[in-house]
Amino acid sequence: MDAKTPSTGRSGAFESPPFKFVGISTFLHAAFVEDWSNVDIGLIGVPYDGGVTNRAGARHGPREIRNQSGLINKIHHRSKLAPFDLCRVADLGDVWVNTPFQPEMAIDNIADYYSRVHAAGIVPITAGGDHSIVLPILRGISAGRKLGVVHLDAHADTSPGRWNFELYHGGPFRMAAEEGLIDPHRTIQIGIRGATAVPGVWQYSIDSGMRVLEIEDVREMGLNAVIAEARRVVGDGPTYVSFDIDCIDPAFAPGTGTPEVGGLTTFEAQQLIRGLQGLDLVGADVVEVSPPFDATGLTALVGATMMFELLCVVAEATARRKGVQPKSARA
Amino acid sequence: MDAKTPSTGRSGAFESPPFKFVGISTFLHAAFVEDWSNVDIGLIGVPYDGGVTNRAGARHGPREIRNQSGLINKIHHRSKLAPFDLCRVADLGDVWVNTPFQPEMAIDNIADYYSRVHAAGIVPITAGGDHSIVLPILRGISAGRKLGVVHLDAHADTSPGRWNFELYHGGPFRMAAEEGLIDPHRTIQIGIRGATAVPGVWQYSIDSGMRVLEIEDVREMGLNAVIAEARRVVGDGPTYVSFDIDCIDPAFAPGTGTPEVGGLTTFEAQQLIRGLQGLDLVGADVVEVSPPFDATGLTALVGATMMFELLCVVAEATARRKGVQPKSARA
Amino acid sequence: MDAKTPSTGRSGAFESPPFKFVGISTFLHAAFVEDWSNVDIGLIGVPYDGGVTNRAGARHGPREIRNQSGLINKIHHRSKLAPFDLCRVADLGDVWVNTPFQPEMAIDNIADYYSRVHAAGIVPITAGGDHSIVLPILRGISAGRKLGVVHLDAHADTSPGRWNFELYHGGPFRMAAEEGLIDPHRTIQIGIRGATAVPGVWQYSIDSGMRVLEIEDVREMGLNAVIAEARRVVGDGPTYVSFDIDCIDPAFAPGTGTPEVGGLTTFEAQQLIRGLQGLDLVGADVVEVSPPFDATGLTALVGATMMFELLCVVAEATARRKGVQPKSARA
Amino acid sequence: MDAKTPSTGRSGAFESPPFKFVGISTFLHAAFVEDWSNVDIGLIGVPYDGGVTNRAGARHGPREIRNQSGLINKIHHRSKLAPFDLCRVADLGDVWVNTPFQPEMAIDNIADYYSRVHAAGIVPITAGGDHSIVLPILRGISAGRKLGVVHLDAHADTSPGRWNFELYHGGPFRMAAEEGLIDPHRTIQIGIRGATAVPGVWQYSIDSGMRVLEIEDVREMGLNAVIAEARRVVGDGPTYVSFDIDCIDPAFAPGTGTPEVGGLTTFEAQQLIRGLQGLDLVGADVVEVSPPFDATGLTALVGATMMFELLCVVAEATARRKGVQPKSARA
Amino acid sequence: MDAKTPSTGRSGAFESPPFKFVGISTFLHAAFVEDWSNVDIGLIGVPYDGGVTNRAGARHGPREIRNQSGLINKIHHRSKLAPFDLCRVADLGDVWVNTPFQPEMAIDNIADYYSRVHAAGIVPITAGGDHSIVLPILRGISAGRKLGVVHLDAHADTSPGRWNFELYHGGPFRMAAEEGLIDPHRTIQIGIRGATAVPGVWQYSIDSGMRVLEIEDVREMGLNAVIAEARRVVGDGPTYVSFDIDCIDPAFAPGTGTPEVGGLTTFEAQQLIRGLQGLDLVGADVVEVSPPFDATGLTALVGATMMFELLCVVAEATARRKGVQPKSARA
Amino acid sequence: MDAKTPSTGRSGAFESPPFKFVGISTFLHAAFVEDWSNVDIGLIGVPYDGGVTNRAGARHGPREIRNQSGLINKIHHRSKLAPFDLCRVADLGDVWVNTPFQPEMAIDNIADYYSRVHAAGIVPITAGGDHSIVLPILRGISAGRKLGVVHLDAHADTSPGRWNFELYHGGPFRMAAEEGLIDPHRTIQIGIRGATAVPGVWQYSIDSGMRVLEIEDVREMGLNAVIAEARRVVGDGPTYVSFDIDCIDPAFAPGTGTPEVGGLTTFEAQQLIRGLQGLDLVGADVVEVSPPFDATGLTALVGATMMFELLCVVAEATARRKGVQPKSARA
Repeated sequence: MDAKTPSTGRSGAFESPPFKFVGISTFLHAAFVEDWSNVDIGLIGVPYDGGVTNRAGARHGPREIRNQSGLINKIHHRSKLAPFDLCRVADLGDVWVNTPFQPEMAIDNIADYYSRVHAAGIVPITAGGDHSIVLPILRGISAGRKLGVVHLDAHADTSPGRWNFELYHGGPFRMAAEEGLIDPHRTIQIGIRGATAVPGVWQYSIDSGMRVLEIEDVREMGLNAVIAEARRVVGDGPTYVSFDIDCIDPAFAPGTGTPEVGGLTTFEAQQLIRGLQGLDLVGADVVEVSPPFDATGLTALVGATMMFELLCVVAEATARRKGVQPKSARA
Repeated sequence: MDAKTPSTGRSGAFESPPFKFVGISTFLHAAFVEDWSNVDIGLIGVPYDGGVTNRAGARHGPREIRNQSGLINKIHHRSKLAPFDLCRVADLGDVWVNTPFQPEMAIDNIADYYSRVHAAGIVPITAGGDHSIVLPILRGISAGRKLGVVHLDAHADTSPGRWNFELYHGGPFRMAAEEGLIDPHRTIQIGIRGATAVPGVWQYSIDSGMRVLEIEDVREMGLNAVIAEARRVVGDGPTYVSFDIDCIDPAFAPGTGTPEVGGLTTFEAQQLIRGLQGLDLVGADVVEVSPPFDATGLTALVGATMMFELLCVVAEATARRKGVQPKSARA
Repeated sequence: MDAKTPSTGRSGAFESPPFKFVGISTFLHAAFVEDWSNVDIGLIGVPYDGGVTNRAGARHGPREIRNQSGLINKIHHRSKLAPFDLCRVADLGDVWVNTPFQPEMAIDNIADYYSRVHAAGIVPITAGGDHSIVLPILRGISAGRKLGVVHLDAHADTSPGRWNFELYHGGPFRMAAEEGLIDPHRTIQIGIRGATAVPGVWQYSIDSGMRVLEIEDVREMGLNAVIAEARRVVGDGPTYVSFDIDCIDPAFAPGTGTPEVGGLTTFEAQQLIRGLQGLDLVGADVVEVSPPFDATGLTALVGATMMFELLCVVAEATARRKGVQPKSARA
Repeated sequence: MDAKTPSTGRSGAFESPPFKFVGISTFLHAAFVEDWSNVDIGLIGVPYDGGVTNRAGARHGPREIRNQSGLINKIHHRSKLAPFDLCRVADLGDVWVNTPFQPEMAIDNIADYYSRVHAAGIVPITAGGDHSIVLPILRGISAGRKLGVVHLDAHADTSPGRWNFELYHGGPFRMAAEEGLIDPHRTIQIGIRGATAVPGVWQYSIDSGMRVLEIEDVREMGLNAVIAEARRVVGDGPTYVSFDIDCIDPAFAPGTGTPEVGGLTTFEAQQLIRGLQGLDLVGADVVEVSPPFDATGLTALVGATMMFELLCVVAEATARRKGVQPKSARA
Repeated sequence: MDAKTPSTGRSGAFESPPFKFVGISTFLHAAFVEDWSNVDIGLIGVPYDGGVTNRAGARHGPREIRNQSGLINKIHHRSKLAPFDLCRVADLGDVWVNTPFQPEMAIDNIADYYSRVHAAGIVPITAGGDHSIVLPILRGISAGRKLGVVHLDAHADTSPGRWNFELYHGGPFRMAAEEGLIDPHRTIQIGIRGATAVPGVWQYSIDSGMRVLEIEDVREMGLNAVIAEARRVVGDGPTYVSFDIDCIDPAFAPGTGTPEVGGLTTFEAQQLIRGLQGLDLVGADVVEVSPPFDATGLTALVGATMMFELLCVVAEATARRKGVQPKSARA
Repeated sequence: MDAKTPSTGRSGAFESPPFKFVGISTFLHAAFVEDWSNVDIGLIGVPYDGGVTNRAGARHGPREIRNQSGLINKIHHRSKLAPFDLCRVADLGDVWVNTPFQPEMAIDNIADYYSRVHAAGIVPITAGGDHSIVLPILRGISAGRKLGVVHLDAHADTSPGRWNFELYHGGPFRMAAEEGLIDPHRTIQIGIRGATAVPGVWQYSIDSGMRVLEIEDVREMGLNAVIAEARRVVGDGPTYVSFDIDCIDPAFAPGTGTPEVGGLTTFEAQQLIRGLQGLDLVGADVVEVSPPFDATGLTALVGATMMFELLCVVAEATARRKGVQPKSARA
């Protein structure tokens, strides 16, 4: 018996089985690897939602994004970027949070994991999980740098702690700024909207110097101006992209914990991500996909699509940093 | 035992329990009251759908709008209006329709209820129910005035009676005009669309002097021009806002009885409501939310959000009428 | 204006509006009260699921059980018990857990609440929430007594702590026994089944003297013998009934966090509860109804129905303790 | 061009297209006919739910039962009855209720239709619609006879009128008995259960001499004894079978207006219907299938299956009355 | 008995029963006919999805589009076209594919059917089915002409064969061009988007001279320019319109086999179809509606609506070809 | 950087992450392997449904069974069998069907794969896919033996070919018998039911000597007698178990292509599988799980549970054949 029997488990999942529903699910058909020594970009799941204040469920996000990844192909139809040709991209599996009842320890687990990812020279693209995970991700990868941030979200997530607790999904960007992980002056928040429980809940964003574009600002300015403004704000420095799925309108992405009507379309979100091409992107995430509230799987499909859009621009940046000339595939 | 044990039943639902899924559901977290003597604005459910010609289910609308209200906060992110600070807002419960098999009596029940609401000096914001309920609401609150109307809908609802019956959801605005409850010349209908069963089904709108903007007109004019036109039409007089959820595209609000594709986005609907700030608003409704056709609850969430948007502009008008200077909260 | 305007908010919800979908939702149509001084049996929601190890969502259980309560009437068709005639039954609202990120504090919150319920002389019937809440409920109401327990569940929930944590939904009955809140020799567990992660996970049940009937035992013995055995085990002493919805097969109750196929039918579960009539019942719960996994609302309806079945036998016991002769209504 | 082009519209739908999802949907693949002159058994839809007191939706029942009919074949696997070989069976379309807002007129419409069906010598098998339609059906077909009735249901439907109205789905069998359309002493009600709103709501059943078997009676007696009792009660006289889908447990048939947990399994229901073979069956119905509450279509499939089971025993009786010797097909 | 008993089976379905859920479902309420001798436009179902490479289900499309047709009326609200007044429109039933396991034979079946439709002088409007059916439709109706094509889709469907197979839904337009059924220079593809599996997968479109507008092109040009370009490309010659439902964003039309986020809105799609009025339209289709992935029926409703939009412009063209002056109804 | 970084990708998935929703999904948490040299039992997916005659979708079965496997633990609660301790169990991934449009070639692909599995000394447990795959599985593993078969199903699947095609899911057991892969006299079919399209469709079963127990026979005999009969029929020889999910009632397992109401409960199915312990089991499958028709995931959970039940008895047999003494774990 030949041990190299062709299989549809993971490797070569793209070329081999003709149909998208075949084989074990990984992010965007990437091979799952346990050996991190040959990876440029790591696709990582963080199935943790211990920071939500309303509807839980984002813990199931990575699994469903992997499933819906089956529908995604590999060459970008517009930019012609082929990220799997530009970089060595792998699915690293999920972060192992073994203290879910103690958020402090969970956050430390995640931060430790990302420190090792960073130490391995891997650029992470994460599927959450709730938005509280962006704090330990930033702790793990900032490495003394103050990162710029392009933050797409319905909520600014710069609230002070509530109920004797800080590590919830409403405040990670405040904490990250206070800890010096990000530079508020190189941070832009796009798509903010929705009634607030208390006045000034997002005041920290303004006071710290972040650029805040509410959804109404986005529509008034137009997408091109928003993209230009984002590029201006983050500049040439290392930049992280955090994509909360609730930046998108719940008609397009209903499966999330705190939906706000009146949001971005998926088309707009795609344009915004594509507009970041050429920046010095050092990591990205898609968070708050909550499958229990996603009856049709559409939100996970949107999550997988946005993960692909992010992969394209992050791979282009990563290849550039490595001195590789990103060549366009002709789709 | 202290009878004033803190509870999460109804009062203080906003401040007290940190999470939105806690406590008995009321409209927008308002306290439910049985004593009407200290209420400026009453949030009222009318669980009646005896006027539908196709798919029933709007009878369950108030309940699900109350449920989805859990996701709504209290300070408007754009206008900074904080309606609960401007006015005394309460959930008055549901209208008691005890003759559902006799539409004539049901309509009389509802009209009688709203007469008492009006007599109590309460401005009503209603969650339906099908659109036939707007006739008895107007009978109850017009009080000899011919009200202006901003009517958002896919259907003009000015059809003559059918099948030996007038009190159905296709004709209330014709009847209201004929009864002198509303002024057709101060009435604007926005978002009308969809094939019709007979020619001239909405001819009454035109003939009576109403301003009719089909969805194509809305897109051609642009939102700002539509808002300006609405303000021009209704002018300074007392004005009622009737919001049929099917004005919105079924991608955003699938749970309704007679969906018509190609409608408004929720963002557009929000802008239209906000554009009414400053008018002399004397009541409003959100009708035709039909939970049995709303698999994900999204339509009820949209309904609750629109109810909040309406509450903001109605509260501003109500406070103004009372001589209160609406102060903006800083969200 | 008469402040006593008939309303469909809460009181008299049964008699007044003819239809079940009218009015603000409470448990089984009971009046919501904030004054505990005239209550014999309190229906209480505990919207907390901080103890789950897999799929969260039971935090939304009380709200949906209230909603589905609309379908339940008030006189038992078989026993003719009319609990609202036997006792003063009220919906007390939800327990106010304001430290959801610190399970230890949440559990203390709940225990404190039930101590006050007990001090007020109120017999509690609870809608969870996950099963970890039964520990603080028992802490609140055991009052120095070692209670007997009839425990219906797919899992024995007597596991030791995991991941440096004890207060999860897999171990409350072990902790309750160790704390002397319940008497293992007067405890019976019915419906246990499903593969286990480690050997002897439920060994504590056996070692401590609990009677464990796996689902196969139930089917082999027959319902009548199971009921007899349950009555024999708990005897005449004060007894608590804990009903985990996952004792029922997921075909009948899919909306739960850790479903196990091959369970009880709802008919069987109803017979088991009815078989407890005449015992000295001092409290009961229905836990683990998880609406995000309950696409059709069926599980919440089953939960509401079981809550009604429990109310009937608990009301009969409560009336008996008060010296009232339970009279049967003729349905 | 040959006008007799083979089509998959309606005729020969069984033999022709190999797959069940092809062609215009009719009940059980029967040909739709407008000419009633060659029909023994008519399959009829009554899309009317103007008699429901809670959740509407049964108006959509006929359409979805037709759709799910695609999954049903034509020879009974157990009895070997092949109803389409025994009788001329046709889909007659839907009853044309053009006064839905006036229940009295609607009921008259239906009664008139069934009078014509009866006059045409057609035995009707009806898909409802809510249970109020059984009254006009019986008015149309009793023809001076007092029919026996086998009534499967969770509710006895012999309640007095409520809210100044009699023609609702809670009382048709009381009215039918009072009008002399059915013989209470030849009527058996099977599967009754569920809490009641008022004492003695079904007292009329007992007082008039109907045999009432609650679900607990069914389980205690066993199916064979129930069948024997049903045959004893109705005897040799002409008998109608009324099948309310809510006799079945909502796990098996969730899509109905007033579900009651703890009901029959579909297997039990099938046995009960088959047990009626040989009686003098003169009509049957399947009512209360409510598609808006039937997320998966399962209830409509159950409805179609029960319609087929009824068709088999009704066709056998019809063939017998015509002097045809029912021959078994060998499946 | 009068054989002309009014029925709600099919004919006069529009005028007769007041409600849309009554009667046997046909496309857009058209009468189903087996005699093709008096038909101008035939509405045809092709329940075949043997050409899909990912998620099957479009075989159920015709049935659900017929069902959702119940919600569509008959006079266009904007163009005032009343297609049933302009032409004799009938539902011809489904194409009878009796060799589903042999795609080659199935495709031949379909082509043969459409040859006969064409020979009968009937203009076909088809509800698929997957997109592979457009090849045999074109084979059947091109009749030696090279048709122009307006093709709305997320995918260009001009791929070469894969896996030793050509007759799949990714390549029909390449095959049609190669066979001379369509003129690539008179073909425009609108809405193309989404990552591709291999470079140059749609290269045939470019190389053969088709005009390809990706979704980004559509948004940049604006709808009016796109319509003008489509009219320029197809010119005055005979033109076919092929509408793949996945041209629309999955928020609006989730029920399809290969959804691509970031697509057209239904409003945009409606405008594009209306913009074709006046062209020499000789046939049209709506394909890839896949009910198993359409939890709410919304996609089938969109499909039915687009079928109505296509019927309006095709009927106008057909009437014109017959020398009838299309008169506008006044809606 | 240590390449052996703990991961939650696949290995040790059981012990390591405390929660079931973490990590890449495999069947029953088994490690996915590409090297077949250390595997006793292979869990294999066959995502192929090219043999269905009605509703497709079983191609998605393996993926969803892997997902729902997250809820399954590893030690059987009743038999105490711990299959992962008894044997080396691995997930081998999916069979690579690269000719889906040519069923003949697809069937050959599958047969070839299973020949290699058999040559590697691996006992296969398969998740389908439709039931046509059992033919190539048997071709691959029968190895000149005539296998006994325990076949649980609603349909006997011994039909002759239809529409010029034999390789469909209605006939694999006839073909297997004709090819000498199975011994009809050592074959038992359990749970058969449902109307048939033509007389004698399953006559081959009877004529060839198979033992056929319809569902009514199962209920009349009782489970113990059915188990005894199954053991008598297959005797001591090598035996395959084929489990079509539609043997189970659609209330418990709605997500399948040809549901038949009135089927087994999951409890009954579990008992039947457990009753096979001790036989010489050489392979097993679970087929016809069709996720597009499984709105809640329940059917896939049932599929995963039955796969675990089969794994327990197959592992016991495999260990026995290897001379290992199956030791019970103490659950």
